[in-house]
This record gives sequence, C-alpha cells and structure tokens, in this order.
Amino acid sequence: MSVVTRTIDFKTRGSGDTIDLTPSIQRSLADCGLKNGTVTVFVPGSTASVTTMEWEPGVVDDFRDALERAAPESREYKHHLRWQDGNGHSHVRAAWIGPSLTIPFTDGNLTLGTWQQIVLVDFDTTPRQRRLILQILGE
Amino acid sequence: MSVVTRTIDFKTRGSGDTIDLTPSIQRSLADCGLKNGTVTVFVPGSTASVTTMEWEPGVVDDFRDALERAAPESREYKHHLRWQDGNGHSHVRAAWIGPSLTIPFTDGNLTLGTWQQIVLVDFDTTPRQRRLILQILGE
Amino acid sequence: MSVVTRTIDFKTRGSGDTIDLTPSIQRSLADCGLKNGTVTVFVPGSTASVTTMEWEPGVVDDFRDALERAAPESREYKHHLRWQDGNGHSHVRAAWIGPSLTIPFTDGNLTLGTWQQIVLVDFDTTPRQRRLILQILGE
Repeated sequence: MSVVTRTIDFKTRGSGDTIDLTPSIQRSLADCGLKNGTVTVFVPGSTASVTTMEWEPGVVDDFRDALERAAPESREYKHHLRWQDGNGHSHVRAAWIGPSLTIPFTDGNLTLGTWQQIVLVDFDTTPRQRRLILQILGE
Repeated sequence: MSVVTRTIDFKTRGSGDTIDLTPSIQRSLADCGLKNGTVTVFVPGSTASVTTMEWEPGVVDDFRDALERAAPESREYKHHLRWQDGNGHSHVRAAWIGPSLTIPFTDGNLTLGTWQQIVLVDFDTTPRQRRLILQILGE
Repeated sequence: MSVVTRTIDFKTRGSGDTIDLTPSIQRSLADCGLKNGTVTVFVPGSTASVTTMEWEPGVVDDFRDALERAAPESREYKHHLRWQDGNGHSHVRAAWIGPSLTIPFTDGNLTLGTWQQIVLVDFDTTPRQRRLILQILGE
C-alpha cells in the first residue's frame, strides 16, 4: 500500500459553474500506477463542492435550480454582515453538498457508472482559480 | 495494510426505496479478515445515494418527503429534454445526497451508532438492479 | 502504510450547535506521527453530521436557517409516531448532510482552505455527549 498526492488546477466561472473532473482524475490515477484502492477528491475552500452526476447541461441546470430554491442568492444572509461579499448562499450550498468524495478504483479504473461523472460545483459569485487535492491510497 | 474489494448485488423498487445495507457490509467485513481500517461504500450510477439513518419506516418516509419538497417529482426538469425519461428529480436528489460514504471499523466492527444504519436510497422511477462497491482498506 | 484510530469526546448543546473540530483533529494528526494520507472523521449516531464551512457565527446561523426551511422542526414527522421524541427534523437533516468526511493530509497538515473548518452539527433537540471517530490511514 502506498499514498500518492496529486493536484489539479483549473479556473471556474463561479455562480454554480459545474466542471467535469473525471478525465483529469482518471489520468492522474493512470499516471500513479496504483491498481486497487481509493481516490479521495477534496476541494480546499468553503464555497465549492464535489459530488457526482450525469454531466449533461440539463442535470447541471436542474441541480443549480434546486439549490437556488433551497438557498436563494437574493436572501439576506448573516454572513454578509461579516464580509459584505454577498456570497452567503455559496457558503450554505457548499456546506450542504460537502467538499469531498472518496471513490474506489479497481484494475486502475474508477468504479463509476457509465453516466456518472465526478464534478466540482463552484458556488462562489465570481470566477475562481481552484486547486483540487487527490489523495490516492492503494497498491 | 491491504485493499479488499467486495460487491453487493440487490434489487430495489425505485421511487425512494431505502435498503438497509448494514448486515451485508458487516458480513463482507468479517469475511475479509481485516481488523482496523475504513470501508468505502460506493454506488455506481447517478440516481441513487448512500447515507446513514435510523432505518425505521417513519424516518425513511420523512426523508423521502423532505426530498420531495426540495426536488419535487412533478416539476419540469431540463434533463427531461434530453432523455424524456421523467427522472430529473432522481438525478437532483442523488447529486445532493452523494454516491459514497466512508466508515471506520475497529476490531472488525463498523463504528456505527446503535440506531444508525447504512442505507442506499434508490431515487430512480423504476425498479433497478444495483451493485454496490465496497473498498476495504486496513490491516 | 498504517492505521491509527483516535476518538474525540465533547459535549454539544443540540439544536444545530456547530462545533469547530479542526484544532482537535489537527492535534490528533500531529500526535500520530503520520505525514501523508487521509483522515476519515465519522460521528456515530443518526442525529448529527460532519461537514466543512467557514466557521463564523453568520455562516453557522445561515446554514441552520436553510435546514430549518428544508426540514422544519415544527412539521409532523412520521418518526414521532415511533418514539414520540420530537426529533424527526434532526433525523432528516443528519441523513441529508451525512455522518462522515474524508480529508487528505500532506506533510502532517490537513489540506483545508484558510477559511475552511471541519465542523460537527448536532441536530438533536437536547444537549448530547458526542464521540467522534478519527480513522487515520497513511505513512
């Protein structure tokens, strides 16, 4: 068993921008040479999340719409009293979905479904530079 | 440290069907002989999720009802424009709850609470055959 | 690679009490001497959750308010028919947010963002004694 750390850097447009990370993660996995184990995908920061979905424009919009109903951008958030940065809804959504996902791999391949992609959703209000941490444990 | 992969196959009735997976996972853990580590429980697919709850009919219904309010089945989802399969709400709910859970085990036992079960919730609209991946890392 | 188990015991006030666990977890990590790997943070029980957020009073309140809208305390829950303990909303919220989080560490440090803390949210209706399980896998 060993541990391999990889990072993936990318830009987002914010505002619910949803990035398919599956090809980058699969490439990092192939490069590290491990065959069986888990990849933990983690986003540092408190306004973005990691989950899986069928990454097609309809689901991406439907998910964003559901979170807009649950934590509307236009509400008054108490967080705004602290920083005046207007991203209270981003914080609520990110805490709700979570920053992390752990995915098994076998024979060097992620055990995803055919129509299942690993995505980062950036809930912040402006474009951001993001760094994803991959912690690969396996043999 | 070593890695052991196990799968659990089962049928669901869809429509929020909530299956208690704890006995199957505990049995897989006992079979593999590892004593301390983590089990990552992962469901391939984009319309089902894994979480924990007190698995009794009341909580099962309450959780389904809360998700029905948050992402109602009867809404128009943009995903429907792509596949016409009427399961837009299933995709939204599954992305929200997530496909994966990692649980510690010590002395060969999952560190669950007394009233806490590991469940799969199948949000899809029809009965499905599901396969769960268990990735057990430990010693 | 090795596995180290640590526990953290603490009291909560219930009712959405949100505890910053980051210093305790970082201390457990430093004590165990491992440099690279993952920490799985798991709360036994079905009425509390683990996630990350910017731990400041505004976000803490905003998150609690959003969950109160999604699963209001005052609703009739079917769970109440079983136990009459009035915490149906606690069960729904805990299943929604989830009991577990896996966080990478490198060079002995959690890979958190600057404004990102690991929190336990206790959704139960009364003060509780809680035990958190840390399963540290690494080298």
